[in-house]
Amino acid sequence: MSDVAAVEQANARFYQAFETLDLTRMEAVWSHGEHVKCVHPGWPLLVGWEAVRSSWATIFENTAEMRFTLSDVRASASDDLAWVTCTENILSEVQGRLSVTSILATNLFERTADGWRLVHHHASHVFSAAPQSESTNN
Amino acid sequence: MSDVAAVEQANARFYQAFETLDLTRMEAVWSHGEHVKCVHPGWPLLVGWEAVRSSWATIFENTAEMRFTLSDVRASASDDLAWVTCTENILSEVQGRLSVTSILATNLFERTADGWRLVHHHASHVFSAAPQSESTNN
Repeated sequence: MSDVAAVEQANARFYQAFETLDLTRMEAVWSHGEHVKCVHPGWPLLVGWEAVRSSWATIFENTAEMRFTLSDVRASASDDLAWVTCTENILSEVQGRLSVTSILATNLFERTADGWRLVHHHASHVFSAAPQSESTNN
Repeated sequence: MSDVAAVEQANARFYQAFETLDLTRMEAVWSHGEHVKCVHPGWPLLVGWEAVRSSWATIFENTAEMRFTLSDVRASASDDLAWVTCTENILSEVQGRLSVTSILATNLFERTADGWRLVHHHASHVFSAAPQSESTNN
């Protein structure tokens, strides 16, 4: 399997863990160390595995259902670090309310003896349509 | 100079280019290729150098002044890819309105013959205070 395919597979595992709301599966997707970071949409930066793990525990406890359709998945891999951008099209039910929303995510993976592990997840809402930028001469 | 110090320097150059609103300086900070990507706060993902360059041209044309104070700059470098997270504390004047805002950024750099060059910038607003996540047992 190519590195890019392996990274795409690790990325898919991350979203499968998110959908199952199973903290043990989420723990298996991430590296565990002080270098690990995470930005949930609108949240401040979380630094270190304990803070990141706690955030997933909180999210899972407060989420009844979570379904993703991923689009625009683009992966690049170097020797020991890889990055993925994708759009998370989310159908979720939080405290009885159903919602669909699109989130942009940047996911970084590091190569470990056990395969690619997530070291950083940065997710944010898209608020605007693509800006018109014809006037690129200056 | 260590790799991390060189990456921090490349990151600082990116924000200096942003402050000067000089497209030539911004061009020098980035790699130029189809693999280059950028997420401005609230914008959709831009893919490829031409789209990214156009976005900076548009932003620079519509911005009278831009001043950053960076905080929480954390850099990690692997052999050929490096990543930085930081908070952009921005003082800006857009169409006569002065504003101060905090943005979270993830910046990815690739090692080139000419040093570290930006390949991805993901910036997003922070909307909420840190969530309380005491209840991490499940």
